[in-house]
Amino acid sequence: MRKRGVKGGIRTPGEEEVLERIRPKEEEHNHTWIVATGILSAIGKDGRAKGMVVGSVARDTWLSGDRDLDIFLLFPPDLSREDLEEKGLDLARSIARRFTGIFHEKYAEHPYVNATIDGLDVDLVPCYEVPSAAAIQSAVDRTPFHTRYISDKIGPLRDDVLLAKQFAKACGVYGSDQMTEGFSGYLCELLVLHYGGFSSLVEAAAGWKPGTCIDLEGHACKAFEEPLRVIDPVDPARNVAAALSSTRMFEFVEYCRGYLGNPSKDFFSLPEQAGMDRDGFARALARRGTSLCAITFATPPLIPDIVVPQLRRSLASIRGLLERNGFGVLQDDCAMGEERSILVLELLVDRLPPVTRHTGPPIWDRSNAEKFAEKYLENPLSGPFIRDGRYMVDLKRRFTESADLLRSPEILTVGLGKHVKQAMEKGWEVHEGEACWREEWKGFLSHFIEPASPLARRERHSS
Amino acid sequence: MRKRGVKGGIRTPGEEEVLERIRPKEEEHNHTWIVATGILSAIGKDGRAKGMVVGSVARDTWLSGDRDLDIFLLFPPDLSREDLEEKGLDLARSIARRFTGIFHEKYAEHPYVNATIDGLDVDLVPCYEVPSAAAIQSAVDRTPFHTRYISDKIGPLRDDVLLAKQFAKACGVYGSDQMTEGFSGYLCELLVLHYGGFSSLVEAAAGWKPGTCIDLEGHACKAFEEPLRVIDPVDPARNVAAALSSTRMFEFVEYCRGYLGNPSKDFFSLPEQAGMDRDGFARALARRGTSLCAITFATPPLIPDIVVPQLRRSLASIRGLLERNGFGVLQDDCAMGEERSILVLELLVDRLPPVTRHTGPPIWDRSNAEKFAEKYLENPLSGPFIRDGRYMVDLKRRFTESADLLRSPEILTVGLGKHVKQAMEKGWEVHEGEACWREEWKGFLSHFIEPASPLARRERHSS
Repeated sequence: MRKRGVKGGIRTPGEEEVLERIRPKEEEHNHTWIVATGILSAIGKDGRAKGMVVGSVARDTWLSGDRDLDIFLLFPPDLSREDLEEKGLDLARSIARRFTGIFHEKYAEHPYVNATIDGLDVDLVPCYEVPSAAAIQSAVDRTPFHTRYISDKIGPLRDDVLLAKQFAKACGVYGSDQMTEGFSGYLCELLVLHYGGFSSLVEAAAGWKPGTCIDLEGHACKAFEEPLRVIDPVDPARNVAAALSSTRMFEFVEYCRGYLGNPSKDFFSLPEQAGMDRDGFARALARRGTSLCAITFATPPLIPDIVVPQLRRSLASIRGLLERNGFGVLQDDCAMGEERSILVLELLVDRLPPVTRHTGPPIWDRSNAEKFAEKYLENPLSGPFIRDGRYMVDLKRRFTESADLLRSPEILTVGLGKHVKQAMEKGWEVHEGEACWREEWKGFLSHFIEPASPLARRERHSS
Repeated sequence: MRKRGVKGGIRTPGEEEVLERIRPKEEEHNHTWIVATGILSAIGKDGRAKGMVVGSVARDTWLSGDRDLDIFLLFPPDLSREDLEEKGLDLARSIARRFTGIFHEKYAEHPYVNATIDGLDVDLVPCYEVPSAAAIQSAVDRTPFHTRYISDKIGPLRDDVLLAKQFAKACGVYGSDQMTEGFSGYLCELLVLHYGGFSSLVEAAAGWKPGTCIDLEGHACKAFEEPLRVIDPVDPARNVAAALSSTRMFEFVEYCRGYLGNPSKDFFSLPEQAGMDRDGFARALARRGTSLCAITFATPPLIPDIVVPQLRRSLASIRGLLERNGFGVLQDDCAMGEERSILVLELLVDRLPPVTRHTGPPIWDRSNAEKFAEKYLENPLSGPFIRDGRYMVDLKRRFTESADLLRSPEILTVGLGKHVKQAMEKGWEVHEGEACWREEWKGFLSHFIEPASPLARRERHSS
């Protein structure tokens, strides 16, 4: 066991062993930089923009096996937004074309090119070259400042960053995309810098509370709402941990505590993602006795950071629809697949009796009360009757089975995200029980139906 | 149709016809007074207290067929409470014994004697003879003042009172006992006095709102909580309509509106109380598709005004128990029978899956979080997992069937009324579905399972 409060650099033998594995080998390092240098040189020759390597390659904090290379194309800030998009994309295309035939245009806040070059996944991203991070014109302009900030300071803590990233990956909380809602690479780097090493980060994080604030440059903590607040050293108005959900934050906290109690190198191994096969899934469902239903449809052709929030919003609206119709939802979740996306809901009951009680106006609201009584004198299951001064009737429930409700066009009338709605208008499928299982959703559905914290999952697997 | 605002005395032919039927015949009147005079004379001869006929007989506002005769025994107010109870009961017993062999002692706020004398149901009630209603020492002391107040003023409105009482009976809202929660005879009399007749009462009541205040003697309306506030002319601190529930009040309002629209003498006919037979009941249940359950036990040997509120409280506690265990209750009700009492609950589902989600401490509460994780690492259906910073687990539900829960001793641990608990400790039965049906509960269960307002019931029967 290490001593408390020891700063980065002193490691357990297990950590040294992990580092041997995750530190990029010399040939890997060389290969990446040969590709990067080639691209930078092509940009330099073209002359329309400056080229800059950013991200973990530039900072030398990437994990062995990562194949991401981010190269930014810096244009003068007096260019109009339209011109930047047009000229930037034009330059990115012509650079990509010189190295490969396979590239795609993608759209985040503005368009960029993604290409596979010599086995690396290269992003060519046009941005403005602004004088300071406070003067950025679009979110991507900030990235060069992040790279300079980290590169200047990270020096002896590079290995600690590698350990922190691998640890977060193994915990299942690495990635600031909308699906993961976890820790970005930049966030890991800042945390290691702030606490002075991996082991002191782990000790500190074990005691995090909601609202913990980390402020490397003494900018003073703004009143952020998020559970973890890490003030961006290059832009104090921004919380670097804004994308981190409370769930992911405390999964990390729990994992740190587990590691402090048992600092085994197993904590750096990625969890098995196998998931249950169809039979195992059916057995797990039977143990729970609940009613599972899934809605699937063609994934909207947009990036996850646009689609995933729409899936979440659609899921919440459909949950509301079920609950308004009397079907209580135990839990729900969604996943965005290559081809199809899935919304899954676990219900306590999927079938309700045909009666539903409907509350009418108060009797003292005479004209509405009389209209109500007249309307419902015929055909209710019972009533109208009076309870505590109001009319009520028992009516036939419109949907006695949840699956009928989910299959009805009514589902298109609730607050679905714009692109999810467009996708569903072309058709959706409703699956029930073990028929929700698909090979591609195996890992997602297994974790949904038998959720476990990172530590609980690890302890069960190792026992 | 009568004109609006016409005061008592001008009636529809239907009302005249009803009066012929409900006004006590001369021989009935004479018989009652012969019995009353005999008892008064016996009290006078005894000399220990003054005798006084009170209630509707004294006021001449009783309905043909009523067999109630209330005679109060007025003792000097300087008698101690104990002496009043002892001497009062002693006198009541000796008077009763002179007329009949069949009498019972009963206990309200203090003891009295109930005897059947010459076909009449006679109450002999000891009370204090106080100088004013403000000086009463017990609730019954107020009654002689009510009798004097009404007798002095009711004069030409006697027939209107008879119509009002019969109308309230037909509506199902006559009686201020705890089960009915309706209109007492005294309340009907005050309302007729205040509005100046039956027809103006009906017109006014059709527009009642919650909080309507009626104040015959200009005492100024105290801040009562009840939906209808009728200041007692002889005791301004008391709301004569305190026992009236909002449901009964607005059933009466609805009934008045119905009568204004169609002033038929049918509105004075008592509703058919037949109720469904077992087959009809089973069919009604099948239409609703709900799960009915009933709990029955020996009725505690006390007066309804003590037992009924305990039944209501027990019912609310048992409903809470069901709901805490995940069984949603659509509606519930209770009834006090001679031998057995019944609590009945209608559930949307009587069976739930074996899983139940349990919320643990927040992760930042480190010591409790670690205890929780340790406790639930083995044997949960799933978890522990983390949601929004808290531990959760899915556990086996203790009761997957509502009837098992109702049959378990746990039912004795919820807030039952004292005497209900004593009765249930000797045993209770749980019935489900159509097996809840019993000849004696027929009317109660029919109205429970297919509730209808007085007007809806009447309109359906007549159509």
